[in-house]
Amino acid sequence: MCVVARGDLVLQAGGLGAVCLGRGLAGQVRVLRHHCWFSRCPESDGQSRAVLSSSLCGETLLEVGPAKLLAFVFLVSKDKEGISPLYSALVMTGFSSLGDISKSFLDLTDPDEINSYFAFNVTSALCLTATALQAFGARPGSSRMVVNISSLCAIKPFKNWALYCSGKASRDMMFQVLALEEPDVRVLNYAPGPLDTDMQLIARTKTGDPEMRQFFQSLQESGQLIDCTVSAQKLVNLLEEDTFPSGAHVDFYNV
Amino acid sequence: MCVVARGDLVLQAGGLGAVCLGRGLAGQVRVLRHHCWFSRCPESDGQSRAVLSSSLCGETLLEVGPAKLLAFVFLVSKDKEGISPLYSALVMTGFSSLGDISKSFLDLTDPDEINSYFAFNVTSALCLTATALQAFGARPGSSRMVVNISSLCAIKPFKNWALYCSGKASRDMMFQVLALEEPDVRVLNYAPGPLDTDMQLIARTKTGDPEMRQFFQSLQESGQLIDCTVSAQKLVNLLEEDTFPSGAHVDFYNV
Repeated sequence: MCVVARGDLVLQAGGLGAVCLGRGLAGQVRVLRHHCWFSRCPESDGQSRAVLSSSLCGETLLEVGPAKLLAFVFLVSKDKEGISPLYSALVMTGFSSLGDISKSFLDLTDPDEINSYFAFNVTSALCLTATALQAFGARPGSSRMVVNISSLCAIKPFKNWALYCSGKASRDMMFQVLALEEPDVRVLNYAPGPLDTDMQLIARTKTGDPEMRQFFQSLQESGQLIDCTVSAQKLVNLLEEDTFPSGAHVDFYNV
Repeated sequence: MCVVARGDLVLQAGGLGAVCLGRGLAGQVRVLRHHCWFSRCPESDGQSRAVLSSSLCGETLLEVGPAKLLAFVFLVSKDKEGISPLYSALVMTGFSSLGDISKSFLDLTDPDEINSYFAFNVTSALCLTATALQAFGARPGSSRMVVNISSLCAIKPFKNWALYCSGKASRDMMFQVLALEEPDVRVLNYAPGPLDTDMQLIARTKTGDPEMRQFFQSLQESGQLIDCTVSAQKLVNLLEEDTFPSGAHVDFYNV
């Protein structure tokens, strides 16, 4: 059994990919305590919360301040045994929504729409990671790991995905800065590959550009979509081996 | 005399670097008509607007909707002669503020602060470029150029500069998407080098990390800061030669 995260698991989840990775990880590790900051995903209509709740410990999530961007959720599991932490704190940031991928760059003229996108996808990841790392400060013998769920889109542009690509690029960069500033925190930008989730369903049906839709369709038809547990296992392996340069962007296909 | 932009010059300026580059460009080219979208820079206290106004045509800028992020400014020069456009429209996006560089990543816990940063530095560049390109649509024989004033920070992390770096990375990526989507629009992410402006003054005095402050201090002391007109000339050369791949990140030092 993998014992990567025998400590506190801080998991910020809103995007389906991160939730599924969280579920995959939860099958691999003994999760002792959760501190979950939750932000409602406008596109998944509560699904993320439900999955997170049932997969990790079955407790009811407490959502505070529904009108605010950032809500705070705190969970404590009843299992206190077997504390032998490899990491004292594992912070995963996974918020991501696609935005309106029917639109092209030239259609993105509404500041409110763009501001909402960055608030949900970038601001939340930054503020919540900073808050989590403050809460789990450096202590003697402790080790802290931050995993940003990244994407190929962080380093490669895709038509109609201006918001998603720029949000992911932005997040990758801010976590590189974190790696520079905090040498005792291990930071990983992990691109999990094209996961077989609802996000891919949206990608192959809603992307404005027909060639892009066809590309995503072909990924599914040729069986190239990746099961979340497979990608989660690669992530677990990465965390166990712990040899990547802090702040690195590591892709599923390059592990 | 350089005739790069004998057409419409669309210049979005808020950051000092872009304004200075705009001033440099204005000395090189015949500017016939300006359509300037203006967003107040919280850090320069109106200075950008004044410089832009006096350097380009001396007309008074009309600021509409001071409470909104995006204001609209429309200028028409009185010179209508010599229209021989190399570009029908040259769009420069230069909004950038440093954010509070006394703070580290771990201090960035206020969502309002982060949201404001991205609204000013990223959302504005996207919305205004999209709006400008809609206003200057593709026409027979027309050619359009978009210049995003980028930075080394778009591709390299710096301590205490999480907001600036991630904002620049985000903008570079969205303009790469634009280049993919609009093959008839030429797109350049130009990193102008460390310009000898107030931004560098702030960098060497306000950056939280002492080594970073020393680094910026040494840039000044060793005479490595670049005069805006020198960088503007390199940009003009790039635009004249017009050989870069659309969407490319091109740095002052690599031209």
